[in-house]
Amino acid sequence: MNYTELFEQIKAKQSFLCIGLDSDFEKLPKHLLNSEFPIFEFNKQIIDETAKYAVAYKPNLAFYESLGLAGWQSLEMTIEYISDNFPEIFIIADAKRGDIGNTSKLYAKAFFDKMDFDAVTVAPYMGEDSVKPFLTYENKWVILLALTSNKGADDFQYFTENGLRLFEKVLEKSQEWGNSENMMYVVGATRAEMLTDVRKIAPDHFLLVPGIGAQGGSLHEVAKFGMNKNCGLLVNSSRAIIFADASENFAKTAGIKAKEVQEEMQNLLKSKGII
Amino acid sequence: MNYTELFEQIKAKQSFLCIGLDSDFEKLPKHLLNSEFPIFEFNKQIIDETAKYAVAYKPNLAFYESLGLAGWQSLEMTIEYISDNFPEIFIIADAKRGDIGNTSKLYAKAFFDKMDFDAVTVAPYMGEDSVKPFLTYENKWVILLALTSNKGADDFQYFTENGLRLFEKVLEKSQEWGNSENMMYVVGATRAEMLTDVRKIAPDHFLLVPGIGAQGGSLHEVAKFGMNKNCGLLVNSSRAIIFADASENFAKTAGIKAKEVQEEMQNLLKSKGII
Repeated sequence: MNYTELFEQIKAKQSFLCIGLDSDFEKLPKHLLNSEFPIFEFNKQIIDETAKYAVAYKPNLAFYESLGLAGWQSLEMTIEYISDNFPEIFIIADAKRGDIGNTSKLYAKAFFDKMDFDAVTVAPYMGEDSVKPFLTYENKWVILLALTSNKGADDFQYFTENGLRLFEKVLEKSQEWGNSENMMYVVGATRAEMLTDVRKIAPDHFLLVPGIGAQGGSLHEVAKFGMNKNCGLLVNSSRAIIFADASENFAKTAGIKAKEVQEEMQNLLKSKGII
Repeated sequence: MNYTELFEQIKAKQSFLCIGLDSDFEKLPKHLLNSEFPIFEFNKQIIDETAKYAVAYKPNLAFYESLGLAGWQSLEMTIEYISDNFPEIFIIADAKRGDIGNTSKLYAKAFFDKMDFDAVTVAPYMGEDSVKPFLTYENKWVILLALTSNKGADDFQYFTENGLRLFEKVLEKSQEWGNSENMMYVVGATRAEMLTDVRKIAPDHFLLVPGIGAQGGSLHEVAKFGMNKNCGLLVNSSRAIIFADASENFAKTAGIKAKEVQEEMQNLLKSKGII
């Protein structure tokens, strides 16, 4: 999917919601455990009820890998289900990969060739040759970790050389490798005020913003400091939507929660004059 | 596996060789392509011929993930084969994972519970809570990226605050989370002279050193600057051993190549008075 198609979807759905399919086996509604692929069944029902409010889905691969073969299979089925039924939706592999060039090339193949993801999250620590292989695919995206939403972000991401912090160095340096049409950045909602500094270096890029909901970030703050003229935001919510209800009504409740977020987003898009 | 067991194995085999099972499907000997699990068949034969010269195996997960389900299955079979037949061997998941706490916890589960790896490589960018979940398993190890062997290492790993470089900051900070009994560091052989600086901060830790062979690093230099009184090194070679020969004799040739490296290691261990 390209930049324009993503922006068109945002305007059409009046939403910039990304739903994290962090489908933790331990938290699945009990009645699903008898199905052959409980995780896929869970995802499918969540997707059916939320697809009209969301522009992106983001399975975090840990939740699938930790189940071994069955998990991997559920992941493949989920991606196929989204592609077949909601082809307008942007699909992100939250994988946080990054390795030497010939190895990153294989990860790119896994996510972009073997499976039909639109984007993959990549860790920047190993630099250019660990990121570039993901940028050789047309209409596919790298989403590079810049400033993450977790506590540990403080350990290295604020490390400072001559007044420039490491996350700013990542934003600057990576623009030599890609551009706003094939690269996004992860910036945590728990650090919304930092979005002002991020926008100084990356005014046009889309930002993937985790951390609203369960992690405590505020959507209003994120839009205030991070939204640009083409929206430029994908705001992720995972647990607060997909695990809002553990009963047989889980999917309906997820739909209601997603709609609430979408309505808030609609207001923010309107107040910015984007829709 | 604990520190003592690893050191005992090094002394017994007179080797600190780690063989990278970067089993690239494209490079497999043609006669293996008819077997049901060509990658597993390849690994099995390589392992049979090299196990007496190697103390560790390190499958890089990209080579398995890029093949989807069949790749994942080959990985599981490989780990099981090593554990069953060569229980003394240290097995490293070269995965370079790292995510927010509840997610890293699931990766740890994938590698340490679902599969019987002894260690997993972890990227440090997200800090403490992305690393700690891997440290809660007894006799399991985190191998944290410090200074990698690739060209892109220059982009961020030498970023300097008050005279301290980022890779040194990673070495320092991470010692608040783990110790030399459950944490190692990746330091590339292509930067052997840097091992002196690494040893100032981490004198006792094992270092996993990739980059000899195909990537050009020198084993002699690595030992000179990096070896400590308990050896403290696992030196990895991948392509130069496993793909030394593309004929039906590939495994025998791999055995010969591994033996050559082991003999060089034996001399280095002797000259240090370790054996």
